Amino acid sequence: MPDAPGAPVGPGPVLVVGTGLLGTSVGLALTRAGREVRLSDPQPEHVRTASGLGAGRAARPDDPEPALVVVACPPDALGAVIAEQLLAHPTAVVTDVGSVKTAPLTALASRVGRDDGARYVGSHPMAGSERSGPLAATATLFEGRPWAVTPHAGSAPDAVAAVTEVAETCGAVTVTMSPAEHDLAVARTSHLPHLMAVLVAGRLADAPTEQLALSGQGVRDVTRVAGGDPALWQQIVGANAPAVADLLRQVRTDLDGLIGVVETGGELAPVLDRGVAGVRAIPGKHGGPPTATSAVYVAVPDHPGELARLFADAGEIGVNIEDVRIDHDPGRPVGLVELTVTAAHAVVLRHALGERGWETQR
Amino acid sequence: MPDAPGAPVGPGPVLVVGTGLLGTSVGLALTRAGREVRLSDPQPEHVRTASGLGAGRAARPDDPEPALVVVACPPDALGAVIAEQLLAHPTAVVTDVGSVKTAPLTALASRVGRDDGARYVGSHPMAGSERSGPLAATATLFEGRPWAVTPHAGSAPDAVAAVTEVAETCGAVTVTMSPAEHDLAVARTSHLPHLMAVLVAGRLADAPTEQLALSGQGVRDVTRVAGGDPALWQQIVGANAPAVADLLRQVRTDLDGLIGVVETGGELAPVLDRGVAGVRAIPGKHGGPPTATSAVYVAVPDHPGELARLFADAGEIGVNIEDVRIDHDPGRPVGLVELTVTAAHAVVLRHALGERGWETQR
Repeated sequence: MPDAPGAPVGPGPVLVVGTGLLGTSVGLALTRAGREVRLSDPQPEHVRTASGLGAGRAARPDDPEPALVVVACPPDALGAVIAEQLLAHPTAVVTDVGSVKTAPLTALASRVGRDDGARYVGSHPMAGSERSGPLAATATLFEGRPWAVTPHAGSAPDAVAAVTEVAETCGAVTVTMSPAEHDLAVARTSHLPHLMAVLVAGRLADAPTEQLALSGQGVRDVTRVAGGDPALWQQIVGANAPAVADLLRQVRTDLDGLIGVVETGGELAPVLDRGVAGVRAIPGKHGGPPTATSAVYVAVPDHPGELARLFADAGEIGVNIEDVRIDHDPGRPVGLVELTVTAAHAVVLRHALGERGWETQR
Repeated sequence: MPDAPGAPVGPGPVLVVGTGLLGTSVGLALTRAGREVRLSDPQPEHVRTASGLGAGRAARPDDPEPALVVVACPPDALGAVIAEQLLAHPTAVVTDVGSVKTAPLTALASRVGRDDGARYVGSHPMAGSERSGPLAATATLFEGRPWAVTPHAGSAPDAVAAVTEVAETCGAVTVTMSPAEHDLAVARTSHLPHLMAVLVAGRLADAPTEQLALSGQGVRDVTRVAGGDPALWQQIVGANAPAVADLLRQVRTDLDGLIGVVETGGELAPVLDRGVAGVRAIPGKHGGPPTATSAVYVAVPDHPGELARLFADAGEIGVNIEDVRIDHDPGRPVGLVELTVTAAHAVVLRHALGERGWETQR
């Protein structure tokens, strides 16, 4: 953890370089918090759009030096743009919001000296990547989301504090770890799941249409992320190739073992049990330990107003809904809505909804 | 497709053998539709529970012959129980609701002759397997769900018609295919996704806690099904081993190729593009072609009544919500609710919610 900085770095002007979804959202969040934000982007129309949305004003050559620069450009350009900003603004702290952290640091090391490099601290907000462009931006994008802050060995403590402060001002929950730890973490929690979803989805692309008629909610969930932008994912995986390849090889070993067990009719329990343990290891809502929840299923006619009626009833009953899922029912206009509530509330909710005329199931 | 039967087989009494989730739900749905239903189970208390719920009455030795028997027992017992029922009720049509169709048919062939076998037609309703027991049953479990009807080469047309009629009476949408086609379909759309989710989740079970702090919605979706009952999945995969092993070997080939591309920094686009194509190939809601949808994100305070207010507003705006997802935000009591609506409605909904004071994003 950083020491408290000698002088507060936080309140100075912030320069956002790259006004896509993430950069514009940072601008909106910081402007809302009263910070002065300037915007730059190779595409001037993106700056105009971001500025029009209230994310800050276009940067000018005669601007006084920014206190902090946020680089929000595509993964492949990160190292070069971070170096450029460190050299252009010799007193500013520089961070970036890219999905990988080691590769840009390596690219940076060949471009700037140790003193300039001390002003760089990488970071990575965990915000959705399926949307893009300034028009998709919002001041609330980072609220309650994890935001990794990844100091390198030479990062100055006050630079770490400044980047942490900006992430927190955006409403995020910071998690501090080294660039290498970060890349291992996202390889496991993001890049591997993405690629495995891609392989499962790839087998559907091959499939006869008749087979796909039996698709249920499970396969939809497993494959959803595989619909993400291939160009972006090429860069992300490419920039984290060693960690991703290592996990893929581990899965390859697991898969070999699994194929052997399935072919010989052996005991699947050890593999399946480990899967259950993995699902339970994912942290619960709000960062706390996983809470015991139950699902209550409700049949809901599939037209406007019915969900409103259901949630109005749930609200009156006073049970907080932890999660909602609507089953996609082929062939008829009725939906099955899955309400996830704490285990203690499930019986209450089911009973009370039943009394109000809803058809419920557990 | 079956010919119209000479005499209607449908309206006779139905015997449900096995009163767990599926058997009891069949009993409830058929009873509600006015059919006479009798129940049997090795565990008499399950019959009492199912009967108490209104799924039918306990079968008695002096009952007249049933017109149709629905076998709803664990996968490993299917062949033996189907054979037993065919021999015990020499004029009845017999079906089952198991997750695999070829293995029980093979087990059956060694137990009954061709004439008796003609009265057997397998089937498989696509209803959730994470719940179990008669208390979890409901008359609406099958409403709008696909229900595979899987005649074998020797199935009598009137038996196929009778099984189809029962599935439709339960509210399901029947899909007719051979047992082998069915097993290939569920290997691809259910068993493979399940096992791949298990492998991804298994890598989380290994992970340092700090790495899991970066878990987002993607990894939660990919791994959710891996939380299913290991004992049940052992039987399902075991009974469909050849088809599952074949797909696993195809995925291993894909994975080998993927590892090579990642290790050498090659072009991932072909793999990623095929994943996108696979996601798009999954049929849309209500069995129609996939509809273009957009997501509208709304920040919602995480306490009772707020979701109700949101859905009430969405209902008044008159936009039908196709799907809902609540993001699990670590660290603070605000939820990000993702509303999926047709692309044409997204702008309307976003604007109208904004006017009512909601913070929205695309």
